[in-house]
Amino acid sequence: MKKVSTFFRLHVLSCLSVLVIWGCTGTTAQSNNEDKLKIQEIISQMTLEEKAGQMTQVTLEVVSKGKDPFNIIQPLELDEAKLRNIIVEHKVGSILNCGGFAHTPQKWQDLISLMQEVATKETRLGIPILYGIDAIHGANYTDGATLFPQQIGLAATWNRELVEAGAKATAYETRASSIPWTFSPVLGLGKDPRWPRIWETFGEDPYLISEMGVAMINGFEGDNTADKFRVASCLKHYIGYSTPLSGKDRTPAWIPERQLLEYYVPSFEASIKAGAKTIMINSGEVNGVPVHGSYKLLTELLRDKLGFEGVAVTDWADIDYLHTRHRTADSQKEAVRQAIMAGVDMAMVPYNVEFTKHLIELVKEGAIPESRLDISVERILKLKMDLDLFEHPVMSFEDYPDFASTKHQQLALDAALESITLLKNNKDILPITKDKKVLITGPNANSMRSLNGGWSYNWQGSVTNDAIEAENTIKEAIENTLGKANTIFVPTITYNEKDVYSAENKSSFKKAVNAAKSVDYILLCLGENSYTEKPGDLESLVISENQIELAKEMAKTGKPIILILNEGRPRIIREIEEVSEAVLHAYLPGNKGGEAISQVLFGDYNPNGKLPYTYPRFENDIVPYYHKYTEQLPPSDGSVYQKSLFYPQWEFGFGLSYTTFEYTDLKVDKTELTSSETVKVEVTVRNTGKRDGKEVIQLYSSDLYASITPEVKRLRDFKKIEIKAGESQKVSFELPMNKLAFTGRKLNKQLEAGEFILSIGSEKVSINLKDSKTDI
Amino acid sequence: MKKVSTFFRLHVLSCLSVLVIWGCTGTTAQSNNEDKLKIQEIISQMTLEEKAGQMTQVTLEVVSKGKDPFNIIQPLELDEAKLRNIIVEHKVGSILNCGGFAHTPQKWQDLISLMQEVATKETRLGIPILYGIDAIHGANYTDGATLFPQQIGLAATWNRELVEAGAKATAYETRASSIPWTFSPVLGLGKDPRWPRIWETFGEDPYLISEMGVAMINGFEGDNTADKFRVASCLKHYIGYSTPLSGKDRTPAWIPERQLLEYYVPSFEASIKAGAKTIMINSGEVNGVPVHGSYKLLTELLRDKLGFEGVAVTDWADIDYLHTRHRTADSQKEAVRQAIMAGVDMAMVPYNVEFTKHLIELVKEGAIPESRLDISVERILKLKMDLDLFEHPVMSFEDYPDFASTKHQQLALDAALESITLLKNNKDILPITKDKKVLITGPNANSMRSLNGGWSYNWQGSVTNDAIEAENTIKEAIENTLGKANTIFVPTITYNEKDVYSAENKSSFKKAVNAAKSVDYILLCLGENSYTEKPGDLESLVISENQIELAKEMAKTGKPIILILNEGRPRIIREIEEVSEAVLHAYLPGNKGGEAISQVLFGDYNPNGKLPYTYPRFENDIVPYYHKYTEQLPPSDGSVYQKSLFYPQWEFGFGLSYTTFEYTDLKVDKTELTSSETVKVEVTVRNTGKRDGKEVIQLYSSDLYASITPEVKRLRDFKKIEIKAGESQKVSFELPMNKLAFTGRKLNKQLEAGEFILSIGSEKVSINLKDSKTDI
Repeated sequence: MKKVSTFFRLHVLSCLSVLVIWGCTGTTAQSNNEDKLKIQEIISQMTLEEKAGQMTQVTLEVVSKGKDPFNIIQPLELDEAKLRNIIVEHKVGSILNCGGFAHTPQKWQDLISLMQEVATKETRLGIPILYGIDAIHGANYTDGATLFPQQIGLAATWNRELVEAGAKATAYETRASSIPWTFSPVLGLGKDPRWPRIWETFGEDPYLISEMGVAMINGFEGDNTADKFRVASCLKHYIGYSTPLSGKDRTPAWIPERQLLEYYVPSFEASIKAGAKTIMINSGEVNGVPVHGSYKLLTELLRDKLGFEGVAVTDWADIDYLHTRHRTADSQKEAVRQAIMAGVDMAMVPYNVEFTKHLIELVKEGAIPESRLDISVERILKLKMDLDLFEHPVMSFEDYPDFASTKHQQLALDAALESITLLKNNKDILPITKDKKVLITGPNANSMRSLNGGWSYNWQGSVTNDAIEAENTIKEAIENTLGKANTIFVPTITYNEKDVYSAENKSSFKKAVNAAKSVDYILLCLGENSYTEKPGDLESLVISENQIELAKEMAKTGKPIILILNEGRPRIIREIEEVSEAVLHAYLPGNKGGEAISQVLFGDYNPNGKLPYTYPRFENDIVPYYHKYTEQLPPSDGSVYQKSLFYPQWEFGFGLSYTTFEYTDLKVDKTELTSSETVKVEVTVRNTGKRDGKEVIQLYSSDLYASITPEVKRLRDFKKIEIKAGESQKVSFELPMNKLAFTGRKLNKQLEAGEFILSIGSEKVSINLKDSKTDI
Repeated sequence: MKKVSTFFRLHVLSCLSVLVIWGCTGTTAQSNNEDKLKIQEIISQMTLEEKAGQMTQVTLEVVSKGKDPFNIIQPLELDEAKLRNIIVEHKVGSILNCGGFAHTPQKWQDLISLMQEVATKETRLGIPILYGIDAIHGANYTDGATLFPQQIGLAATWNRELVEAGAKATAYETRASSIPWTFSPVLGLGKDPRWPRIWETFGEDPYLISEMGVAMINGFEGDNTADKFRVASCLKHYIGYSTPLSGKDRTPAWIPERQLLEYYVPSFEASIKAGAKTIMINSGEVNGVPVHGSYKLLTELLRDKLGFEGVAVTDWADIDYLHTRHRTADSQKEAVRQAIMAGVDMAMVPYNVEFTKHLIELVKEGAIPESRLDISVERILKLKMDLDLFEHPVMSFEDYPDFASTKHQQLALDAALESITLLKNNKDILPITKDKKVLITGPNANSMRSLNGGWSYNWQGSVTNDAIEAENTIKEAIENTLGKANTIFVPTITYNEKDVYSAENKSSFKKAVNAAKSVDYILLCLGENSYTEKPGDLESLVISENQIELAKEMAKTGKPIILILNEGRPRIIREIEEVSEAVLHAYLPGNKGGEAISQVLFGDYNPNGKLPYTYPRFENDIVPYYHKYTEQLPPSDGSVYQKSLFYPQWEFGFGLSYTTFEYTDLKVDKTELTSSETVKVEVTVRNTGKRDGKEVIQLYSSDLYASITPEVKRLRDFKKIEIKAGESQKVSFELPMNKLAFTGRKLNKQLEAGEFILSIGSEKVSINLKDSKTDI
């Protein structure tokens, strides 16, 4: 034993120069090969127990002081005996989570230093621990870190560069906390607004999700994850997690294979191509099969077809759940067998090492070949090397001067500003001049918690109001802008912080009604409190009755209502919209949300966000923009069918500005094309208003006839540009015909000859594809 | 030409004796063979035009007097020139529908006599017309016919014999109208309550649907459809029509192949085995493919796998819609090619003969082989022979003395009585003694239209209040029972008959509130007005705001509320249920609904209906009883997860009685079984109350672990029995282990060894299956 260990340590030292090459100048074919050889060498020295340990991930609570993982002492401290038991005795290779609450970067450095000390110095092979965290909108488990808008807000910016820059800053601040791996981004198709994690997605469109996903991965990983400012990303949640049939989290999804390939796979495919290092598995079942036990999805599709070579990690306790929830395994041990044989590399166990023990037994019994473990261990060790953990298992916080820097804070503010989406603005009532008096009311007016949403300082984001003091709520930001004398704040409704997220306290509206008499505008701040996962399950998509009542009461005052929406999913607000003169949708804008909303309200910033989803008008309107023609039968098709029409509150891609844009002269360079050609599409956009502004130019295609019923339109490309008042810009796109392909009846990607309509704004042009092509 | 015709006529005459055998004593192997030969002989004489004509079905309006089919003169009269053009010139083989409104049986006889006169005497081959009609709850397009509860109510009876008897009476009264073919039953899986045709289904459970479907087909077809009292049935709507993703009619469905086989196919499979003569195709798309253009579903599954040999007819205009709505065909002609090559036999065109012309052209151009037409024409001619139309193309109304007879009326009343489901009965407030005073209010109190639902006298059921005078509304039936002196009727809300079905007129509730002071009970008659198909699309499943408000206002009077529900789908009534002491669910009980409700209310009948679906409590509760364990995570599994629980208003299979039943001594004859064995299950049921009563004994199974996530339970058998007060009965079931099979990952039907729990009422017993079996 000792011999092996010594050999390995020497070997690692002798490879130092190679490691430096990996670490700093990118992975070359040669280093990749040496890398591979070295990992093989390590694996050849590993015992079965060490292999099983590498595939095991436990939560921080397991190695923390306290009676058991469910009763740890706060503030959290590592329990060295437990730590040694887990790392040395059980050879566990990965730890995750925050133990309940965020820590300062210094504390993170201390925690991880101790873990790495034990892992690298007290284990036989000295393999460093891989630490993982949900840093999903900034390093949200690090106190003082920069918190960005949640993904749905990032999607609303339609700004690839901004999203990449934000992810880069998040990577920086995560590494500043000595953590090299984030469980982000979510790439699920956000097309069911009832689902409680819709705000963690990039919205409903496969192309927008793909573009934003790749931008985020590039921001996290850069060219080289060994860079001390980068982290490994984790594509979530592979696959089909986002649209459970009931809308409730972790319940069964029905996704036909063709739809899976057409709508759900592209974002993962694009991100895999972009080099994403890890992937997390969907906790739910698709078509009756839990994804954690699906060889078809985890190996045939993910590995063989999509070519993913990184680490596949389970979600929280999901192997156990094959036994206790999904019931495809009649024991915990059988659950382990199913998941590993399906293709899982690492189990987020997370509370014990039963997984490790079962895995060892299964190999000894011959139920799992040891060679199967070698494949996963190779991926895991490669990830640790790619992250330079062998050389630098811990970072030094002093090396990260930009942690929460003004530069990063500005990025977060920029992202919040670009996300805010102006959905209604009757008679240009917005922006409000700064000499006006306003009444601020509603449960979201004075809450940092609701601005940030879940995964902020703790899992449910429920401690945010105490965790952050330096930032401004909507009310505080407006007070700073207008002065206290010109603002009246009456809470009316508040969220009941002692109950479930949706619980509200309601006091009399009289005070607010009276206050309204003396102001020019009512700023109604409505929406949801923070939540995620199953606790965010919903009984009805309609916004709370209290909030509807508040809007109606305020409307009776006759003062114009500006509705500010701050919510994780598009709750039905039909009755509130009707009484509002303007609607600003802020999604979950993060710590800079109050400031951003105030800048938009009072004209310091011209809004340019666009909806990343279809905003439903009625509960039964859960239909994305890329629906079929049968979902928008026109009224002429039987005069009483109006309830069947596609008639959302607002459409995907919609968003107003304080200026106006006119689209003209949509042109293509050719109208007859073959399948291997690219069409150049050009449009002139003119800022016809009086303010400079940004606009998202969206290119859609419509296939008029196809062997699979065509969608009414599909987004194919977009560009975000800035145009000065009165000026014009020509915007052009290169659209390869291949982008118009769809998944056919035989599940192949195919192009069919015929007419397509390309559209930008209200402009349309027809092109003709001359040939068909299968198996693209 | 003449020669062929003469040959055929002679041939038909010479086969008279054979026809009599088919007609009256059932189909033997020999006659079947002769039948086949004769049809082949006919086909060999047919021109392409005649074949295409046989495959064409037009609507009655096309041959009626008037400017065009959309502007016919009422009352309807046949236009002989149009008739000859359609039948003689274009050789059309089938006509359907009622031309807008119901007719008397005598009028039907006249209409069809003239058609058959032309068809049999003026065409070259003298092939009779096949007339088809939507007789879905009785001969609902024949004035004066007996109208039964709609299918959802029949399902609530859980009484196979009663359903068969009702269908037999419907067949009788349909044939009495000279119509030999009904487009019934609907066999779709009714698991999405938003869908506007949920009331046309047998509810959410595959087994209950199968049992009721087979009963209905047996009632329609008997042993022999040549019997002058029987009709051909039509299985609707093959397949996957009932659960569009959006809940809106004829919008896309996503049904994975495994789920299709497990939940949707069984009812069709059982009915095909039962000998059903025809099938109608789903107007929608499944997984991106319109079913009318799916060779996979219409030929590979329907013909090759399920062995269906009868006629596949399209739904209304659905071949055209491949071009205009689904857009899989870039012309009407291409749409015809797609549908015919997919496997359609007959096109319900219905307004012209463009289909026929296109079909002829396609054959001439070689796009469709003429042999393909021969297959369909053979099926159609066989159907006409099986219905004895060659010999008896028209019936004589005088041969049908039981049309609307007391016997049939009693059957309809029995069915309505057995359908009514008592969902709540606080402190045994029901039944009400006949000396009490009641206030009757609500929009469903005085409407024959709402009792009958759609497909009653016209398509939307909107003329029912004028069409039927002999029957009683709820209000009238109660007045008859209590006397006018003891009843006060205040309409409060009424349906606006001049607007869409859901429009309501609301008058002040004051009069009702005042009236409540003088009565003992408030009978609140709520629900929906009649509708079907796309006009019944819904924005929200919650019942109308007016009705909720009415319930709340009435509750303030302090008088006990008895809620009588009369609705086509389970609208959310949570807030109304909370203020009601009792709830009676009547579904759409037909013309005898008023009488049945009154009998139950006042104790002349002890209710015994059971819900055929899960009644949702919240909008997001669209989850059937056979959900997965992940859909009912218990509260212990994370304390704040209560919104995730399966927590319907009422469960599938639920229904109270005025007596009580106790289940004891559940036993099996063996607990260890092999896959080829049958377990005998026995339970003792005791009527522990003071009234005689009927009870539905429901046998469920739960598979504890399986390679496809098992449902929490599945209905496997049921029996409806009557038990006198104080008495007991032993009820036993023979359950072959094969019934516990499920559709596996490879889409095969399979059984897996292991433990199953069988349950009846609250009684449970465990059995162990010793072996596994694939490809059952």
